[in-house]
Amino acid sequence: MRINFIAELAGGKLFGESESEIVGVAAIEKAREGEISFIEREKNAPNAEEIKASCVIVPENFEAPLPCPFIKVKNPKLAFARIAAELHPPKRRANRSANISIAKDSDVRAAFIGEFVSIGERTSIGEGAQILPGARIGENVSIGENSVIHSNCVIYDNVSIGDNCIIHSGAVIGADGFGYVRDGANGYVKFPQIGTVVIEDDVEIGANTCVDRGALGETRIGRGAKIDNLVQIGHNVRVGARVVIASQTGISGSTVIEDDCVIGGQVGMGDHATVKSGAIIGSQAGVLPGKIVREGVWWGTPVQPLDEYKRQNAHVKGINRLKEEVKEIKKQIARMINRSEEKEY
Amino acid sequence: MRINFIAELAGGKLFGESESEIVGVAAIEKAREGEISFIEREKNAPNAEEIKASCVIVPENFEAPLPCPFIKVKNPKLAFARIAAELHPPKRRANRSANISIAKDSDVRAAFIGEFVSIGERTSIGEGAQILPGARIGENVSIGENSVIHSNCVIYDNVSIGDNCIIHSGAVIGADGFGYVRDGANGYVKFPQIGTVVIEDDVEIGANTCVDRGALGETRIGRGAKIDNLVQIGHNVRVGARVVIASQTGISGSTVIEDDCVIGGQVGMGDHATVKSGAIIGSQAGVLPGKIVREGVWWGTPVQPLDEYKRQNAHVKGINRLKEEVKEIKKQIARMINRSEEKEY
Amino acid sequence: MRINFIAELAGGKLFGESESEIVGVAAIEKAREGEISFIEREKNAPNAEEIKASCVIVPENFEAPLPCPFIKVKNPKLAFARIAAELHPPKRRANRSANISIAKDSDVRAAFIGEFVSIGERTSIGEGAQILPGARIGENVSIGENSVIHSNCVIYDNVSIGDNCIIHSGAVIGADGFGYVRDGANGYVKFPQIGTVVIEDDVEIGANTCVDRGALGETRIGRGAKIDNLVQIGHNVRVGARVVIASQTGISGSTVIEDDCVIGGQVGMGDHATVKSGAIIGSQAGVLPGKIVREGVWWGTPVQPLDEYKRQNAHVKGINRLKEEVKEIKKQIARMINRSEEKEY
Repeated sequence: MRINFIAELAGGKLFGESESEIVGVAAIEKAREGEISFIEREKNAPNAEEIKASCVIVPENFEAPLPCPFIKVKNPKLAFARIAAELHPPKRRANRSANISIAKDSDVRAAFIGEFVSIGERTSIGEGAQILPGARIGENVSIGENSVIHSNCVIYDNVSIGDNCIIHSGAVIGADGFGYVRDGANGYVKFPQIGTVVIEDDVEIGANTCVDRGALGETRIGRGAKIDNLVQIGHNVRVGARVVIASQTGISGSTVIEDDCVIGGQVGMGDHATVKSGAIIGSQAGVLPGKIVREGVWWGTPVQPLDEYKRQNAHVKGINRLKEEVKEIKKQIARMINRSEEKEY
Repeated sequence: MRINFIAELAGGKLFGESESEIVGVAAIEKAREGEISFIEREKNAPNAEEIKASCVIVPENFEAPLPCPFIKVKNPKLAFARIAAELHPPKRRANRSANISIAKDSDVRAAFIGEFVSIGERTSIGEGAQILPGARIGENVSIGENSVIHSNCVIYDNVSIGDNCIIHSGAVIGADGFGYVRDGANGYVKFPQIGTVVIEDDVEIGANTCVDRGALGETRIGRGAKIDNLVQIGHNVRVGARVVIASQTGISGSTVIEDDCVIGGQVGMGDHATVKSGAIIGSQAGVLPGKIVREGVWWGTPVQPLDEYKRQNAHVKGINRLKEEVKEIKKQIARMINRSEEKEY
Repeated sequence: MRINFIAELAGGKLFGESESEIVGVAAIEKAREGEISFIEREKNAPNAEEIKASCVIVPENFEAPLPCPFIKVKNPKLAFARIAAELHPPKRRANRSANISIAKDSDVRAAFIGEFVSIGERTSIGEGAQILPGARIGENVSIGENSVIHSNCVIYDNVSIGDNCIIHSGAVIGADGFGYVRDGANGYVKFPQIGTVVIEDDVEIGANTCVDRGALGETRIGRGAKIDNLVQIGHNVRVGARVVIASQTGISGSTVIEDDCVIGGQVGMGDHATVKSGAIIGSQAGVLPGKIVREGVWWGTPVQPLDEYKRQNAHVKGINRLKEEVKEIKKQIARMINRSEEKEY
């Protein structure tokens, strides 16, 4: 890919030679000849003599000298991500392996079916989809075009997955939600878990993440949501569009996370909570059942606005001093009482 | 299923027409003709005109008007769960797929063996059991009658699973426990992990949950216990009968959870702790190694009784006011000292 | 194995009869004839009449009477672990199952390939390696000698695993890291995740643990590191040699854990943090992004030295008393003011 073509792709302004061939991307400290890299902020730039890349994407206000052609753009990291996607497209396999099991009344147009994949009855898989080895696709499942189901994923019956989704290995979509009714000394009777899961387009779901089916209704993951590894999404949860959820977070049943929220890692949310659009919740935070979390940055268990959390943490750190002060005050008062008594007698 | 038959099943009293056919269950806002639903408490009931169900299960003290036949029972949710189990029984497949591998000296009577399942030597599987595609059953494993092992589960060698269990996809039963002995600068020597796992009858284990084998003895999950997704059960743990453990909780080695405990999500327990029968531990709580947690409701890290936890949280929130008060007191004392000095001279 | 041979293996001094045959290991309360056990500290020893083992390993300063031959060593648990490894070696299978898929241009010398294993192009697997049923080995993967890849593991393309490693079931090595660039209202563009994972020799990785590939560089797990179940290792993380990480801990991108650290369970670490060699971090602790954690014992969120953590916890517990004291002081001051006013008039 020629530098001038890349500049066009990046929507940026090219400075320097434009005809060199770029064959890959790399981090700025590692990039060699033939590779393009990026610098997000000028203050983080290495010295010019350390830069061996053949082209660098920089912010518009970048002024330091560079030893190679460079492209000025508004958001270098975004431009770099776009270019990387062109230079290193994900591998698109196109064949059907020998040892697979596809139910007869299914409609499987997928570009690639890996070894030992099994696909159930009445399931449809769109064109360009990639089903990697050992993936288990249940009955009456729908998978859209160009979606990638990685090795050993399990998609339970009746689940629907949109176009251009990526489901990483070991993810389990549509297992029964966790709902029981206590029956006295007999223990628990399972509440019906007969709903479904709907995953909209452009969703990425991490390795070994679990998305449970709705008890009676559906669990829904909105368009463009990005969910990391080992996340738990309970039954009837609704995750909005473009929501980001980091690793090991758990969302209990029927909780709603509205569009464009960002949820850190190891966050826990009780059931029937609502996280309003645009809220940001820090790692390891805890949201109590039924809570409404408004727009803004939230931290701690139970969650509170980041400012309050910091202030409170500072206060807690200051308790020791407070104790000392109270001790001192008590001494002063004792002295004052003594003195006043002395005067009285 | 006729309404009068359902009323009998629910052990309730039927009001209204009794001959209509019910074909499914649904939530009260969604239920349509032919469907039955339930209302847990009268105050949560929708208006009569919004109810489209053909039958509703209600508590005995329910008095609001209903536009359809209704059944009064003591515990509507429990009755509903029981009826749902009849109307929507889990799919019971009955065949052996073409591409499976069963060791010759095993005793496999299971009703269903899915595609690409492998079963090791000397393993026995009871009648009515369902082994879904890609499940891995090791050697010398025992699985009881009517148990369901979902797709891509892994059961290591020598594990025993009872009757009527459900093990969800990706669960790993019997991997080595996490035990090492430090050998100076050489690093770690593995402590033997040669025990086993025993899962009693009627246990449900969630997707991607891990139950490690005992180091020398056994790890045991008691009858009727219900364990959610992504839970970690360490080596030699004993989980009692009818214990409920929510998602992402981790139980360290040799800890004992007695019968009928309820453990929230993301709870962490150190090793060799004991949770006494009937204890309830809130989400994200932490139990220190060796601790004994008595009956009652517990919260926080380290766990404390819920009342104390709440009081302490309130106190922490009040530190700021306390600081202000101390500041004010100091001013007052300074004024008093000044005044008394003035009087002296 | 004769007792005198075991004493030699343990590097200890044998007291009592030396010719008996030992066939297995067991815990001290469970060990029967023919079995060897160990006692870590004399104060934890059962009464002599309760010991049924044929041989016991004890510390050098052990003095209580024993009813059987015993071996004195410096570290009984370590000696016991070494002997157990000899008496109960992990099962070494040696055959290739019938239903497997190995790409033609791979170099697979593994001793055992289980049922329904798939191995991609240009992949090499060393001698003595064991690939258990349903494991998925991608393209251009390298696995060293005598490593064991348990059932249904997934090793993505281009990952490198050393000699004598154990990867437990359901672990996913090399899935894409979690990195996106926001593109305004359009949502997120995936940052390239085209690096790799390098796992050095003698590493053990727990069931359902995820180790993400580097974004541009590598994620590296150092020699002899031991990682428990359900752990998340983000992209570009570097885990040092002989590091121990307990279950359900999550390490965010680019964080470095230096050699010989011990990390408890359910710990969360932000990105770009550094944990210096020899640090010990308690369970459920939280390390903020970019933090440097020095040698020593750390606890809490955000992490603080264990001493400080304990002191602070004690202070928080004491707030209530502090409040009472302040109340009392206010009363005293009010009385003093009253009295002084009385005197004035």
